[in-house]
This record gives sequence, C-alpha cells and structure tokens, in this order.
Amino acid sequence: MSQFLKVKTADEVISIVRKLEPLERETVELKAACGRVLSSAVQAPEALPHFSRATMDGYAVRAKDTFGASESLPALLKVGGEVLMGRSASVQLEAGKAIAIPTGGMLPMGADAVVMVEYTNNLDEATIEVIRPIAPGDNVLKVGEDIAQGETLFAAGWRLRPQDVGLLAALGIAEVQVFARPRVAIISTGDEVLPVSSCPPPMGKIRDINSFTLAAQVQQAGALVGFEEVVTDDLDALSASCSSALIENDVVLLSGGSSVGSRDFTLQILDRFPTAELLVHGIAIRPGKPTILARIGKKVFWGLPGQPVSALMIFRAFVLPSLAILEGQSDLSGMSGNVVRATLNRQLPSVHGRSEYVPVVVSRVEERVVATPIFGKSAMIGILAKADGYVIVPEHVEGLDSGSEVQVYILSR
Amino acid sequence: MSQFLKVKTADEVISIVRKLEPLERETVELKAACGRVLSSAVQAPEALPHFSRATMDGYAVRAKDTFGASESLPALLKVGGEVLMGRSASVQLEAGKAIAIPTGGMLPMGADAVVMVEYTNNLDEATIEVIRPIAPGDNVLKVGEDIAQGETLFAAGWRLRPQDVGLLAALGIAEVQVFARPRVAIISTGDEVLPVSSCPPPMGKIRDINSFTLAAQVQQAGALVGFEEVVTDDLDALSASCSSALIENDVVLLSGGSSVGSRDFTLQILDRFPTAELLVHGIAIRPGKPTILARIGKKVFWGLPGQPVSALMIFRAFVLPSLAILEGQSDLSGMSGNVVRATLNRQLPSVHGRSEYVPVVVSRVEERVVATPIFGKSAMIGILAKADGYVIVPEHVEGLDSGSEVQVYILSR
Repeated sequence: MSQFLKVKTADEVISIVRKLEPLERETVELKAACGRVLSSAVQAPEALPHFSRATMDGYAVRAKDTFGASESLPALLKVGGEVLMGRSASVQLEAGKAIAIPTGGMLPMGADAVVMVEYTNNLDEATIEVIRPIAPGDNVLKVGEDIAQGETLFAAGWRLRPQDVGLLAALGIAEVQVFARPRVAIISTGDEVLPVSSCPPPMGKIRDINSFTLAAQVQQAGALVGFEEVVTDDLDALSASCSSALIENDVVLLSGGSSVGSRDFTLQILDRFPTAELLVHGIAIRPGKPTILARIGKKVFWGLPGQPVSALMIFRAFVLPSLAILEGQSDLSGMSGNVVRATLNRQLPSVHGRSEYVPVVVSRVEERVVATPIFGKSAMIGILAKADGYVIVPEHVEGLDSGSEVQVYILSR
Repeated sequence: MSQFLKVKTADEVISIVRKLEPLERETVELKAACGRVLSSAVQAPEALPHFSRATMDGYAVRAKDTFGASESLPALLKVGGEVLMGRSASVQLEAGKAIAIPTGGMLPMGADAVVMVEYTNNLDEATIEVIRPIAPGDNVLKVGEDIAQGETLFAAGWRLRPQDVGLLAALGIAEVQVFARPRVAIISTGDEVLPVSSCPPPMGKIRDINSFTLAAQVQQAGALVGFEEVVTDDLDALSASCSSALIENDVVLLSGGSSVGSRDFTLQILDRFPTAELLVHGIAIRPGKPTILARIGKKVFWGLPGQPVSALMIFRAFVLPSLAILEGQSDLSGMSGNVVRATLNRQLPSVHGRSEYVPVVVSRVEERVVATPIFGKSAMIGILAKADGYVIVPEHVEGLDSGSEVQVYILSR
C-alpha cells in the first residue's frame, strides 16, 4: 500500500468519492420506498389517467353545443343522465344533451368537455341552460394527459420523494428496485475516551462524543448504523475491531484519537488488510486535514479526526456524499442541504491553498440575513451547538472581507 | 359546532396552528434523541472541559519561561516528564522545565501554556530549546472554557441536531426529556379509490395516492404513522374509521373524495363528535382551498382535499407546522426546508386575495438559477413528480412578472 500520497483538495476528494461503486440492488415495497434510490429506470406501465376524467363538478357536453352561449342567450340542453363517482360511464352522450358529472368522474362517450356547474342553471328537472361557451377539452383530463404509457418517470440513481411515491402508486407500481442502504460501522478510539455513562469522568479522560454525532449523521443520511465500538488506542484491538466491522458493514468510520500515535495506527491497520488501497491521506481543509480514505475490497474505510468538530464537518463534506454514491445516487447537487445567502459581518482570515470551514450564527437584521463567525479553539464542541451553519472560505482566496456575500450551509437536524 | 367560518388566509391558519398544545413528555436515551424536541431546558451539569487540556502536541510550560525566545536566542528548558493520554497529570511543572504533552492531554499543575512541538528542538534527552515565545493560555483549553457549569445549553422547544447530541454526550447527559412524537392516522376516502395493487383498475376508478404521499411526508417530518385505512364515501363508515383512529392517534388526516358529497361528509363527521371544534373551514390558497382544521378534545383533525397535488401542498404548508407544534417545537422558521432564490422565466398570473402555490422546475443557466413554472391541470400528479419545488404568489399581488426574483421551496426527499 503506497503511503506517500499528496494532501488532496476538497474537489479532488469528491472526484475520488464519485468513483466508488454502488451497493447491491434489492426490491422494496412502495410503502418503504420514500428516500430510497432507484437502481433502474422506471417507465409508466399504463397511461395516467386511464380514462378521461372531469376536473370540475358540472355537466359533460359536446363543446359545440355551447358555442355562442351567454347569459342573455343561454344554450338549452336536456339532461341525459348522471355519471356516478367511481363507476364506468355507461351512457352515451347524444347531441343537444348534457350528463351530470362529479369532479373525477369518467367522461361519457360522445362528450368532449365539462361545463362547470357555476355556469349552468336548472330550468326544470330535465333541462339546464348553459350561460358560457366552452372549448373541447375544457375541464377534462384526457387519457394519458398526465403520464403517457411507456413514458420514463425516473432514471436510475433518482432518490424518491413523497410525490414520486405518489406517482408510482397511481400507476400501480407496488414495489421498486433500489440500491441497498449502506451499513456503517462506527469505531471510536483514544485512550482518553470513556462511555457517556461515566459520571464524573476521571481527570485526563473525556466522554465519547463521535459515536453520538456520527451515528446521528448516518441515520440522518438514511443509512444504517450496523456496528458501534469504543476501542482503546491499541493496534491489535483496533485491527480486530475493524475486521469484525468489515464482515457485515459496507463502511467503517474510525475516528481516531487525536494523538500522533493513533494517527499512525490508522495506516498500520490498513497495512494489515492485503486488499486495502489508500485513496486519500490528508485533505487541504481546516478543520479535518488528517482525514484518510481507503478502499478495502469493495468496502469503504474513513479515518476521521478524533476531534468531534472536525469529524462532524468531514462527515458533512465528504462522508455524506460517499454514502449517497454507495447508495447509487447520481446527482449530488442537493447534498449541501439547506443553504442560505448571508452577509458576513466580520473579516475571516484564511490561508491560501486550504479551504476553511467556519461555524457561524445566522441572524436577521431588518431585511438582511447576517452571518456572524464563531471563533474559538477547534476542540470546542460547544461552538457547533451554538452554530446555525458554516461558511466555506475557498482554498484559492486569502480570507473574506467583512460585508462579503457568503453561502451558509445550515447544520440542521 | 359553528359551521359558518370565513375562509382564512394562510397566515391566519398558521396563527391558529401555533396555538395547538404540545403532546405529553417522555424520556429518551441520548442515542435516540437526534431530531427530537426538548420538553425542558438543559443546563450543563459540569464544566467542559473538566480539566485543562492541550490543543496541540508539544510541551507544557510556564509561558514566562519562553518570553523573548527566538531562533537565534532560544529558551532552554529541562524536560521534567511526560503527560500520558487519558491519564491524570500527576507531575507538577517546576520553573525552567517543560513536560511533554499530547493533544488532548491534561495540563499539569504549574503550567499555563503549551508550546507546539514544531517550535522546539531536542538538544539532548533531557533538554529542549524553544524558538518562539508563547502567551499564557496558548494551545490550552481551560476548565469551563468550552461550556461553563450551569450554562443553559438548549431551551425547551429546541429540536436536537447531531452536534447538539454530541454536546450532551460530552457532558454525560445519557437521557433527555422530550415531547412525544405525534402519531398520525391517515384515512383516504372516495368511491373511486382503490388499493395500489389493483391492476388494472376498472374504468371510473383510480388507485389510492394520498395514503402514500401523506405517509411518506409524515415519516419525513419525524412523526409516526399509527393507522391507515381506505374507506368508501359513506358517512357511517367514515365516522367509524375516524373514531377508531382517534383512540390511539393524536392527529387524523382525512383526505376526502373530491366530490361535493364527501366534502360535506367531513363536517357531518365532525358533528358526530361532541367535543369537536371547527377552527378552519377553507383557506384562501390555490390549490387546497377546501381544507378543514378542527380540534376534537386535544386531538387534531385535518380534512384535506382529495386531489393528491393539493393534499401534498397543504401538508407541506400547514400540516407539517402543526406536527412540529404538537411536538413542542418553538421556532418554526426552519420549517420551509431548503429554499432557493431564483429568477422566474414566465409570467405567473394570479388572483388578488388568494395565495397561489405553483410547481416549478429549477435549472441553472450560466450563473443564474432559473425557475420555470409547470402549468397543467390540478389533477395531474405527474406535475409534482416533475417539479423541483414551488413558488408562492402572495395573496396581496396580482401575479408575478417574468424576471421577478422568487423563493423556490424545494420538494426534497
């Protein structure tokens, strides 16, 4: 395994992530399909609607029987029956007649439009007058006007939304082929790390944070947490934990202790897997530079910084897209989530050649949306809990001036 | 039950929704707390960190022992020991000495700063030279510098994000008090509505769409689907279904058939519940005007339009905020989800006095984000599957001109 990789830019890492292969395919019932990614394109097996329907309550007519109708000179039509909701329209409309029809009712043969009930008056039980002319097709949804039979509804790689599931339901598609959701193992290490139940922790030790923030982020991404372990900073123990994790999981997130030793451990662990291939060793961003990405066979291994703020940011920027790629999602453009434009109200210094991710508070000052950077030491988890989102200072600039317009990436639930 | 309510504006409906009472409280483990809403404020039970920590690898020193140090005139310090990761720093730092310390290690008594290893040279095993002066506090996170003991971390009504859960973990808070998640019953009615498995449906009938889109939206909102039923358009059957639903659910979503009769049924059903109170009967928006909101005791009843596009829009605009209020969320400002500013590329006609929700496709033309309205008949579910989001034409304007800057509310998974 080559260990001499150059630190990569954020864009280079995303390009590498995009080349990961999607997981196997599976079939899910439509009820469970929202949020899943289609593994093959879906075509419409039938036309929608499969019969011409009224879109208003009124009377099915021949449009030409209403031509020239007005309040002063209404068209008189005989009522030739009624279409019942949910029933086949068995009557045939004859010239000079009208058939009562509810919204959603089936248009009877011979009719080509529906006149709204508001534009009719009942003269007697068998006769109506129509006070406005209508055109053929008015207030009618024709066979296939919504979706044509055979039309491609969604391409492979599309993540289904509630409305998409609704469309599939309308077409009788009761199950869909999707990519499996990634199963993720979360391993936290560090000789200083204790379970959350330790109360109070002894001097020198801190409680495990990354298991919680990473598991919450994995679930938020629609992936599954398949394995969780807090392991001491010991090469054998860590290797054993990673081996166990790799059996049933697609992704391992190892958030290392922040000490020099445990950083080296990550590479030594990878060395023990003959099929391991180091893809990224260091990213030109702050925080989170000492990030590692490797492939072990078809499995994906992330070595994340032990520092919780860095681990959370790296998850958001790189691990999240990698989970989407494993799930077969073809378009990553929506991965940034909620993005708000704001005016920066402080100067943000930065180093050329390195992207900086800076937590900010978003507030509304009169009509303007203002982003206030939160400065603090990088070990402060409290900063992120106070932040509404973060701003990215790109690698090719040396800081941003106060008053700059920036994009704030919102850190939401 | 008063049935003579005036059609309300969207803002009036939201004001009514805001007055709904939150559900009961419950305790959840921290692992399951992300996305839940706190029912009481949380204070920090301890300081964070609870011991002063190094934020860099290096040497713990007294800052004044480095004053004036430079490459040409370095400060010479004796190495007086080593702090081990995760251990209490038992050694005391004496004047003129340095103690090796890893990132995250506990600062020994007597030290007030950490000099980074990069600014030191080892002269021999027992001596280092420091080539830069440092100030007290440099590269140290002091006791309580991140979070002070007793500090309020989150107010009641706050929905926990991954980073918030991380902060609670850091402080040893292993469980939290939250509001219960709303349990939602979804009842679809209409004589024309058939289960999705009907293949092909007979003429005049269509498959149930709302059960799917509403259930997916409920789950997206973090609420629970507790009951689902497709019922024929019959007053007794519908009342019985609602009664069953009210036993174990907090919210009933009855999406009615779109026929005139079933619209009236909703009010007749409410009449059968002595504690029912009609809050909204009609909203001045399109689509979705015939929406009903009622309270039955402490339970919430929504009568939604049967037309799937309308039902989906009304859910997004009003039902979603109502679920958040039931869950005790105090700030609804993030409910709109992802909002994108775009330039409208067509004229959007509208009627004064009524808000219009218009589906749009979002595309990027060079540097500009463009919103293209999708026109079509309101019964077309295919429109929403093609849409990226929607634009709201406010009630106080008569349409929007082509070229207007608009907010697009993204319809995402």
